[in-house]
Amino acid sequence: MKLTLALDFGGTKLAAGLVNADSRKWLRYERRFSPINGDANTDLEIMRSLIHSLLQGETPTAIGVSFGGPVDATTGTVRLSHHVPGWENIPLKSLLEKEFGVPTSVDNDANVAALGEQHFGAGQGYDSLFYITISTGVGGGWILNGKPWRGAVGMAGEIGHIVVEPAGPICLCGKRGCVERLASGPYMAQNAKDILENQPEREDGQILRNLVGNNLNLLTGQLISEAATKGDNLAQAVLQKSAWALGVGIGNVANLINPQRFILGGSVTKAGEIWWTVLQETARFTALPEVPLEIVPAVLADDAPLWGAVALAQNL
Amino acid sequence: MKLTLALDFGGTKLAAGLVNADSRKWLRYERRFSPINGDANTDLEIMRSLIHSLLQGETPTAIGVSFGGPVDATTGTVRLSHHVPGWENIPLKSLLEKEFGVPTSVDNDANVAALGEQHFGAGQGYDSLFYITISTGVGGGWILNGKPWRGAVGMAGEIGHIVVEPAGPICLCGKRGCVERLASGPYMAQNAKDILENQPEREDGQILRNLVGNNLNLLTGQLISEAATKGDNLAQAVLQKSAWALGVGIGNVANLINPQRFILGGSVTKAGEIWWTVLQETARFTALPEVPLEIVPAVLADDAPLWGAVALAQNL
Repeated sequence: MKLTLALDFGGTKLAAGLVNADSRKWLRYERRFSPINGDANTDLEIMRSLIHSLLQGETPTAIGVSFGGPVDATTGTVRLSHHVPGWENIPLKSLLEKEFGVPTSVDNDANVAALGEQHFGAGQGYDSLFYITISTGVGGGWILNGKPWRGAVGMAGEIGHIVVEPAGPICLCGKRGCVERLASGPYMAQNAKDILENQPEREDGQILRNLVGNNLNLLTGQLISEAATKGDNLAQAVLQKSAWALGVGIGNVANLINPQRFILGGSVTKAGEIWWTVLQETARFTALPEVPLEIVPAVLADDAPLWGAVALAQNL
Repeated sequence: MKLTLALDFGGTKLAAGLVNADSRKWLRYERRFSPINGDANTDLEIMRSLIHSLLQGETPTAIGVSFGGPVDATTGTVRLSHHVPGWENIPLKSLLEKEFGVPTSVDNDANVAALGEQHFGAGQGYDSLFYITISTGVGGGWILNGKPWRGAVGMAGEIGHIVVEPAGPICLCGKRGCVERLASGPYMAQNAKDILENQPEREDGQILRNLVGNNLNLLTGQLISEAATKGDNLAQAVLQKSAWALGVGIGNVANLINPQRFILGGSVTKAGEIWWTVLQETARFTALPEVPLEIVPAVLADDAPLWGAVALAQNL
């Protein structure tokens, strides 16, 4: 039996799955949280134990790896992790090949998730697509002419850092008004906090305040969605700004690359109908009339990187 | 002797060139203006006379065509011309194949010029590049993985219509603050005119006013460059805004696609050092630090589409 082993180093969680060739169901599957004060070594230790628990003494024919951070996909070397220390220049491909003796492919999570959706999810039958994940950050992965497009130095897909509001708030990257600065979950929380703190006279935002017992440090993107659904005007405004920013970004990308389909995953895409409607309308307005637009939700959810790792290992 | 015939329907001008296989010099070459009140038929008539004058009774092995407007490259059908009436749905490839009896390939000028620069100009040895032309309009053509990337319905490359200033002036496309609305030659002229008309108390702009004898309808992008070089502050501000808009656009594109090189052609790229400096600085600031940026001038100038047509015909 030919087995494919798929690994996902997700930053806050670690997952591994095992499939038979051509199967679309996990033979075995495990998932753990990454320890809060861990480093690259603790992540690798946990992953090793997951792998051995999955393999049960069998040997896979190939390993595919999704890594939550910048990776040199040609050498399979991790550049760094923004979440876990100690990952700088770790030759993950070589490490795993030495330890398990089988061909291993490594790429970053956005590229790998794009591959997962292409082969097992919302991108099946599509030759060109852009997968975007909107959660803690905003990133993307390209499939062009049926294959991943990683860019000259592997930096393609950074829709999170295209500027949509030059006079907007300052992003972690130093610029103002990046898509990520307006659209990501944590930044939505910060935007709501800023408004509530700086405009205490506002009458809206009460539902949002109540959800966190007035402790604004507890605000999250998810709570903003919740308050928006319950009718909180302030939460709705913050959510609409997120959808607007991403919509402008997607419309711009459509004009530039004209892919067949955009596939959206990540926690913020669960924000509800308001978010999706504003997003679709803004993208449609921003794209030229001659540019067709298809924007759909991802279907593999948290497992997109893991299924993408299967595709990567099987060289699909 | 194997001959390749290259044709350029440029909107305001028509050009044709003939080369021997593998040669990088025109065997014969002719260029004419398109008549001001002409239509598709007059353009085709003029082109026929150019072709016969070039061929001198010989037969080429293939014909490549650059068309200044949207084209369905798969069928070689022109969709329309924004400059010359009567081009709607003209099957240019079939027409030429019937008339000259040799395989013919047709694509729009931005894609073809990108191909020209890739094989004969500033893109030689590069596998991924974005060619941008900044003149009457702003458009672009992609080379990815060594080949043209035209998009799902041939609409890729429209950097002119990505939004860089959402609160900016209204573009012909209906949106505000598109790259083209701020960066193109005619729109620079309009921006200068608007400032001069609406702020008559301004003391700068005098050099610009003098260049057109105070008749603001005579303003052009070229005159703005000229006045800027002579030290006119208002002209410099308009020019810098053009460079800023394109710089933001290019930085965004770099984050999204990370091509090896950007190649810039068209009349506005002759605007001088201020324009190039602001452009390079803005693009560098907009791109993420990890994203390398190479922005260079095109080298084939007005002949980029014609050399691209050679590459297209020879299927390079």
